Amino acid sequence: MTDELSDADLDLIFREARSFNGWHDKEVSDQQIHAIYELLKMGPTSANQQPGRFVWCKSEESKKRLADCVSDDNRDKVLTAPVCVIIGYDIDFHEHLPWLFPHTDAKSWFEGDEEGRKESAMRNSVLQGAYLMIAARSLGLDCGPMSGFDAEATTKEFFADQPQYRADWLCSIGYGDKSTIFDRSPRPDFDKFNQLI
Amino acid sequence: MTDELSDADLDLIFREARSFNGWHDKEVSDQQIHAIYELLKMGPTSANQQPGRFVWCKSEESKKRLADCVSDDNRDKVLTAPVCVIIGYDIDFHEHLPWLFPHTDAKSWFEGDEEGRKESAMRNSVLQGAYLMIAARSLGLDCGPMSGFDAEATTKEFFADQPQYRADWLCSIGYGDKSTIFDRSPRPDFDKFNQLI
Repeated sequence: MTDELSDADLDLIFREARSFNGWHDKEVSDQQIHAIYELLKMGPTSANQQPGRFVWCKSEESKKRLADCVSDDNRDKVLTAPVCVIIGYDIDFHEHLPWLFPHTDAKSWFEGDEEGRKESAMRNSVLQGAYLMIAARSLGLDCGPMSGFDAEATTKEFFADQPQYRADWLCSIGYGDKSTIFDRSPRPDFDKFNQLI
Repeated sequence: MTDELSDADLDLIFREARSFNGWHDKEVSDQQIHAIYELLKMGPTSANQQPGRFVWCKSEESKKRLADCVSDDNRDKVLTAPVCVIIGYDIDFHEHLPWLFPHTDAKSWFEGDEEGRKESAMRNSVLQGAYLMIAARSLGLDCGPMSGFDAEATTKEFFADQPQYRADWLCSIGYGDKSTIFDRSPRPDFDKFNQLI
């Protein structure tokens, strides 16, 4: 166990990491996909809800189905990425709480409140999507998150047999081609969006 | 630059990290708070929105104000934490896009669509909150995220002068006391909530 990440590690997962649209022609293995999930699932979610539902589109066929659901400028990004993940959530995540959070009756906190469940499922599945990106970077991969897509069409296409699941955003994964990116957009100084009181 | 995090690093930020409610009596410095922000702001947000608005409550007075806005079982957790951060968002984040995303007119994408802005601000500020937690862990600190609080009262109390800001969730930061935590809740196998297609 270490106490802190090194500067090189922080460069890898935060400071030098970039979002990619262009990818080297190098496969992401099923083993790597499993390894990402094994890390992301360890990240905290409220009452261990684990509401994220992930569809890892890796075959040509699944990427074509997904490309038909995205905005025109994201179509090629989906088709050319080694893997594109649909990050969705389960508005009935509470049905799983008896085994995911066994020491109390957390399921009852959410019963009869679909709007509250949806908000909690979105918030906590987005946390899991962030863990997914950091986990992928930690394992030497790059990410390309996207929200320009038809969430309803994607939900229908990929979650037809799970009507309580909703697609929320997308993230391509692979080995990013640095020749396809521009300079990093500006980052705010601490005082701009923070108060320390 | 390294290519991958070591096993010890992955233990620190994912596998061995836990959510804490009990804290050692050890200060988190202003410098550490700034260091966390310097990392979290490098994480990706859609069109570099950077919609997160963070209030780092460190003084006794600010923690008391926050404790009055949380559920009874979270009250002591706020008061005893070295720092408790309010993770909020700005529904008018698009006003900043001309300088945050200068190469195109991204502000116009969001004008006149407050509901869409709110959804995007929530999603992207939650991503930033996840980066905050991973950044804190990377720097040797522990986290205690909480959503049991009165978001409206907190918004009124802390964002009175910024009516477009909304409080969304909370996260304590400090050095977690391992004697106060129980065994980790179960984590799902890959096949439970993933499809690889």
